[in-house]
Amino acid sequence: MAKTARVVQRDALHNIVKRIFVAAGCSDQHATVVADVLLWANLRGVDSHGVVRVPRYIEMFKSGEAKASPALRLRRMRPAAVLVEADGAPGPVALQAAMAGAIGAARENGVAWASVRGTVHTGAIGYYAELAAGQGMIGVGIVAGVPNMAYHGARGAGVATSPLAIAVPSSKHGTILLDMATATIALGKIAQHKIKGLPLPQGAALDAEGLPTTDAAKAVTPLPMAGAKGSGMSLMFELVTSVLVGNPIVAPFHAKAPDGRKHRQNAAMLAIDIATFSDPDTFKSVVDETVNAIKAMPPAEPGVEVLLPGERGARAFAQRLKEGIPIPPPTWEALVEAGRAVRVDIDS
Amino acid sequence: MAKTARVVQRDALHNIVKRIFVAAGCSDQHATVVADVLLWANLRGVDSHGVVRVPRYIEMFKSGEAKASPALRLRRMRPAAVLVEADGAPGPVALQAAMAGAIGAARENGVAWASVRGTVHTGAIGYYAELAAGQGMIGVGIVAGVPNMAYHGARGAGVATSPLAIAVPSSKHGTILLDMATATIALGKIAQHKIKGLPLPQGAALDAEGLPTTDAAKAVTPLPMAGAKGSGMSLMFELVTSVLVGNPIVAPFHAKAPDGRKHRQNAAMLAIDIATFSDPDTFKSVVDETVNAIKAMPPAEPGVEVLLPGERGARAFAQRLKEGIPIPPPTWEALVEAGRAVRVDIDS
Repeated sequence: MAKTARVVQRDALHNIVKRIFVAAGCSDQHATVVADVLLWANLRGVDSHGVVRVPRYIEMFKSGEAKASPALRLRRMRPAAVLVEADGAPGPVALQAAMAGAIGAARENGVAWASVRGTVHTGAIGYYAELAAGQGMIGVGIVAGVPNMAYHGARGAGVATSPLAIAVPSSKHGTILLDMATATIALGKIAQHKIKGLPLPQGAALDAEGLPTTDAAKAVTPLPMAGAKGSGMSLMFELVTSVLVGNPIVAPFHAKAPDGRKHRQNAAMLAIDIATFSDPDTFKSVVDETVNAIKAMPPAEPGVEVLLPGERGARAFAQRLKEGIPIPPPTWEALVEAGRAVRVDIDS
Repeated sequence: MAKTARVVQRDALHNIVKRIFVAAGCSDQHATVVADVLLWANLRGVDSHGVVRVPRYIEMFKSGEAKASPALRLRRMRPAAVLVEADGAPGPVALQAAMAGAIGAARENGVAWASVRGTVHTGAIGYYAELAAGQGMIGVGIVAGVPNMAYHGARGAGVATSPLAIAVPSSKHGTILLDMATATIALGKIAQHKIKGLPLPQGAALDAEGLPTTDAAKAVTPLPMAGAKGSGMSLMFELVTSVLVGNPIVAPFHAKAPDGRKHRQNAAMLAIDIATFSDPDTFKSVVDETVNAIKAMPPAEPGVEVLLPGERGARAFAQRLKEGIPIPPPTWEALVEAGRAVRVDIDS
């Protein structure tokens, strides 16, 4: 008895999300940023990072893991270095502030870095990297979180599926956007395989005992992409984000410290002002030439298009902006429920 | 009739390399830097990036692809942004200058980025990232070069096996150093499998037709690590290094432009001054706690140690510094030959 997904227009869904966050105690500005980031993910087809996350944020406001009204502070530590003390702000609020800070500082100094200390669920980090690209800059973002991925050669969860995003503006291809986790397979994909009763590929996940499995129902821990490289990147991201700002996650997790498993994240954003090194228009047209050359390569499988980083997402974005976003019944019901918890009737 | 490797002490080998480069027209300082970088790779057991490269540099000086006496220029474009116009300097000379520039600018501004325009063979880029770690900073390095790796979903060489290095200082574990190519398998490893007549793993390489092969003798193009992620990273590195400084490699390569296949590289270095955000000693001890937690995890295979990024290399370094560096006869003969070409008798 699968009900069909309801299709909601972007602005209507944005408004729903915003109303829920405002009712939960967020400022109008913060609620707008959260809705912007979640809707961006839905538009790009990354539904695992879209409005499906709303209930969890509302839960975290209630449990105190996150704050609807955080004392977020942006500190300019040095000319090219910004620290965002997120104080438990939702990830979108903290990371948007960080990238805005990095962009401002990069405008003056050529390049700038913003560290984020103590946030929760950051959403799809490609969003923040793309903010820089929209300002004629190269944007880079990384995040660290509570271990949920294997470390190469070890059993159980060692590090997090910490993502990396790199965004570069082009002239005719929009933003070239790499947005990738350091895991072989996304947790969301494991869940989908479980629902569909499909086996996982070899080498994708571990079971609760920390042993390799292809049974999606038993899989709990994704393996790192490319073995030691994926978990190595994730470990370095923890050092370069969490440890750099004195808010470690991996060490207390393994030490079984109080709150060591509590959900929290740290992040860092880098902005590089293209005009520092190149004429921005020339830069963008050489980006076009480069990606055109890649797209013109003979495909590995005849008839299967060679894709650029982020190209599939950009197409979904255009399509869903026009046609609306399909919301599966369980997601819609969870949204209704989250609304109800803060006395917002989203069905009206 | 395999001859045994001769074992040469680090300082003796360093001296040989330096003499060859000075005789080839390099300044004493440049020759020292090249020898430092090549010897570092040999000490760490990365012999593919060590003195085996000497003959190729000498060849490139002769062909004009590289310059022994380049008009290398370090330009401070903005407070946190440095450009090294390498003018065909050997990679070690250009990248060492870039990281030194980034470190200096990061000391003032918290964070700094140095782009390198127009160099050749950079050697093992972990070396430059580690320079930053030695100065109480986090060091990051990336390089772009002529396509020699598949782009996911396309046939033939699309992008380069461009590496990423991240170095973080610790208190008791030395530098935690991730130094990885974006390929599934190194070109050097394919060559070794060919010599030994061993098959390659599935999904590691393409043949001359651009089709998958496990036959090392037929393999010419390594596949990217983790599919679209590896080639996506490599493509972004090209945009963020080569295109940023107006010296594209991928586009002219595919356009079959004159010199489009000529060996050349661009790079970028990032330095983050830890003291901007944290007390450096506290930082280093939390790095220790973090990596100790990882090392204490139960191993995937009983009795097989869980390794940190760069740990194997650091051990080789300590051992080879003490016991000397094994140089296989073909490498030694090539060194003798390279010396002879510039009238240096290294056998004396």
